[in-house]
Amino acid sequence: MKPALAKGTRDFSPAEIAKRRYIIQGLQKNFEAFGFEPLETPSFELLSTLTGKYGEEGDRLMFKILNSGDFSSGIDEKDWSARDVKKITQQVSEKALRYDLTVPFARYVSMNLSRLNFPFRRYQIQPVWRADRPQRGRYREFLQCDADIVGSKSLWQEIDLILLYQKAFSDLSLPIRIHINNRKILSGLAQYANISDQLIDFTTALDKLDKIGEEGVIMELRSKNISEESIDKLSFLFKRHDPSRVLDLLEGYFSSVDIGKKGLEELRFVLENAYALEVKEENLVFDITLARGLEYYTGAIFEVKPLGVDSNSIGGGGRYDNLTEVFGIKNISGVGISFGLDRIYLLLEALGLFPKELDEGFVTDYLFANYGLREALFSQSIISQLRVKGVSAELYPDTNKMKKFFAYSEKKKIKNLVFIGETELLNKTITIKNQVNGFQETLPVSEFLAQF
Amino acid sequence: MKPALAKGTRDFSPAEIAKRRYIIQGLQKNFEAFGFEPLETPSFELLSTLTGKYGEEGDRLMFKILNSGDFSSGIDEKDWSARDVKKITQQVSEKALRYDLTVPFARYVSMNLSRLNFPFRRYQIQPVWRADRPQRGRYREFLQCDADIVGSKSLWQEIDLILLYQKAFSDLSLPIRIHINNRKILSGLAQYANISDQLIDFTTALDKLDKIGEEGVIMELRSKNISEESIDKLSFLFKRHDPSRVLDLLEGYFSSVDIGKKGLEELRFVLENAYALEVKEENLVFDITLARGLEYYTGAIFEVKPLGVDSNSIGGGGRYDNLTEVFGIKNISGVGISFGLDRIYLLLEALGLFPKELDEGFVTDYLFANYGLREALFSQSIISQLRVKGVSAELYPDTNKMKKFFAYSEKKKIKNLVFIGETELLNKTITIKNQVNGFQETLPVSEFLAQF
Repeated sequence: MKPALAKGTRDFSPAEIAKRRYIIQGLQKNFEAFGFEPLETPSFELLSTLTGKYGEEGDRLMFKILNSGDFSSGIDEKDWSARDVKKITQQVSEKALRYDLTVPFARYVSMNLSRLNFPFRRYQIQPVWRADRPQRGRYREFLQCDADIVGSKSLWQEIDLILLYQKAFSDLSLPIRIHINNRKILSGLAQYANISDQLIDFTTALDKLDKIGEEGVIMELRSKNISEESIDKLSFLFKRHDPSRVLDLLEGYFSSVDIGKKGLEELRFVLENAYALEVKEENLVFDITLARGLEYYTGAIFEVKPLGVDSNSIGGGGRYDNLTEVFGIKNISGVGISFGLDRIYLLLEALGLFPKELDEGFVTDYLFANYGLREALFSQSIISQLRVKGVSAELYPDTNKMKKFFAYSEKKKIKNLVFIGETELLNKTITIKNQVNGFQETLPVSEFLAQF
Repeated sequence: MKPALAKGTRDFSPAEIAKRRYIIQGLQKNFEAFGFEPLETPSFELLSTLTGKYGEEGDRLMFKILNSGDFSSGIDEKDWSARDVKKITQQVSEKALRYDLTVPFARYVSMNLSRLNFPFRRYQIQPVWRADRPQRGRYREFLQCDADIVGSKSLWQEIDLILLYQKAFSDLSLPIRIHINNRKILSGLAQYANISDQLIDFTTALDKLDKIGEEGVIMELRSKNISEESIDKLSFLFKRHDPSRVLDLLEGYFSSVDIGKKGLEELRFVLENAYALEVKEENLVFDITLARGLEYYTGAIFEVKPLGVDSNSIGGGGRYDNLTEVFGIKNISGVGISFGLDRIYLLLEALGLFPKELDEGFVTDYLFANYGLREALFSQSIISQLRVKGVSAELYPDTNKMKKFFAYSEKKKIKNLVFIGETELLNKTITIKNQVNGFQETLPVSEFLAQF
């Protein structure tokens, strides 16, 4: 049988793990500096926890786990013989793999309400699974990195998350632009143009402005039966005015649109204070076309793109007001952001932004040759002392196989080779050859160990 | 809908994560000091990779993933209407969650043979899933921590793994005893007693010596139709002689049992050299009753128990000769050990061996009160500077809610509270109250920041 990976999954080699850890540990360090606490939830949840939370597509792309034992027993004969997949699925499967980190987080908050300290800042870095069609940079198992603050409506949270994005990406030397919008502004626009019941049609078209241009957006709006009058009222949006001009125009149009006014006020507060802190205007821009996650975002909406490189978003998030409502708990407002690890990885790789030493992966500091039992035993005792000092070391296992020893050391890119033969054993010395500069020296073992 | 966890799964709170990280990072550090490189494999594998590798029980307890879409299509009408679960399972499910780390590792080695550098030292710390009945300390999702060396038959590998166990547990301040046996000795014994075809019956009974005593073991052997003559030959094993006496007896009995002689030779080499290094006799004992994993272990067998505490094993492993044979690649010998994270966690907790500071989980260093827009903005700028220095800090989001501010700080156990009011804003000073000793001081911001 020829071994293979399941479609859309990956093994991570040591070198890849070194690079992924570099990103993950950088994020962790920042999450913790910002007062976020880690949370881990199980890989699978009850299907009843997940179903219906991600729309029809989510329900379809969720990996469901077959019940153990005789999963077919107890299933209605009619459903079974009709092969009614939808009905049967609910009966043969009661669990599914985590589809994102938000719903498990909401489940956790709902179950631990009395124990939590609000505003609760949690971060979570765990894999999620989706039965998507795999493509470059898109896998069926991938890591999500989320940071959320729940239990406070203060806009200082939005500002803090912007600072977190800025700090985390700055640590990775990756220049970014944060796009920001507000759901209330989009709602206000729809109200102003009398198309409140077509908010999604409107924002879906607007979101394509970059790709299909003004004409394209207008055509799409027409195809959705939005009136010429409404399109006229919205047409200033398609002109690519600069953000502050758009804000000024909105200010006028929203004079009697309360929700829009509220959105503007929120946006201005966040932008002004972020700019007053160390955020530059080129790194944070109001983007009226940004309309992600309107099913659940109720205030600020964020999207992060690398600056100066053509790339999909590498992060996003927003404010939501009803995190735990599906679990019967109302009025828990929150705001959160996520980091797209796989895309960040590809970018750092493409731009050469990983620190050079990571290319080597995990390299043992000292490899000891093996010249026989007594020599090996002496070597092993030195190796143990090195390890206690946090220096990595290995004994080559096979005796007197010098060719294999060198091949192994070369392939593993080990820099320091150690030779303990009869002479060294007798004199309690150690001979070390530095493979980088070719320097070789023999010194007393005690002197060697005293260096560390 | 009342939210709940799936049976046998757990959320990990920040405080639990802090303690789990303490163990995991300790293991990682040691794995790397011993020259092991990390590997990560996908959470699910093709069912064909996993099926048949863990015996019938494993096949049953494996979590299978339902195929996406119309999983029932294409299934033979006869199988479907007969509800032939075994046949249907193979057709509705082509993937399963990882059941252990060994088979995915074997699959990885098989797929990357030409790229790997042998002896290949890899460690892997990832969750596995088993549909076992949950009980205290046993979950359906749990972390496995494995270290294996493949591609070398040298017994120095066994010695190095013993040193690894010793170092890793010593770092956790947990005294242990490593029990060691050798499959070849057990095979030799079976041969010596003419019951080679009943090796498993024999070792299963012997393994129970501690629980059921000499009489019990003999009764069980009789019930398996092992002859009195064979039982007589083996009876010295049930006498609880000390290990070196057993070794001496075996030496005599194995004079014409080659496999047994080989096993003794291997065992003596490992023991003698481990003792010659810094391993104490109370921490490493020959245990003839140890017979775990005989389906795949071919040489050394290890089991680790805490010393002085009644507990199940907290680690185990052994030498295997056919890691990749199921994938068509022969003669890859390896030896590996694993660490039982959940049991280690419970023990450290019960024995009070976790460092005290871990009880607090993740505590923000400085919490800033919020007295209004300008004060908050100034606070946030100081917070950013603290974070750059690696000091964690947060602004309390709500303005002038001092009661809530104090409640939050107390619940989160934050030690340093910061107050920036009008006076501080005017003078560019900062007032800090240490909650541990009650000390309060006001100093220039620059002076405060210069401390870090």
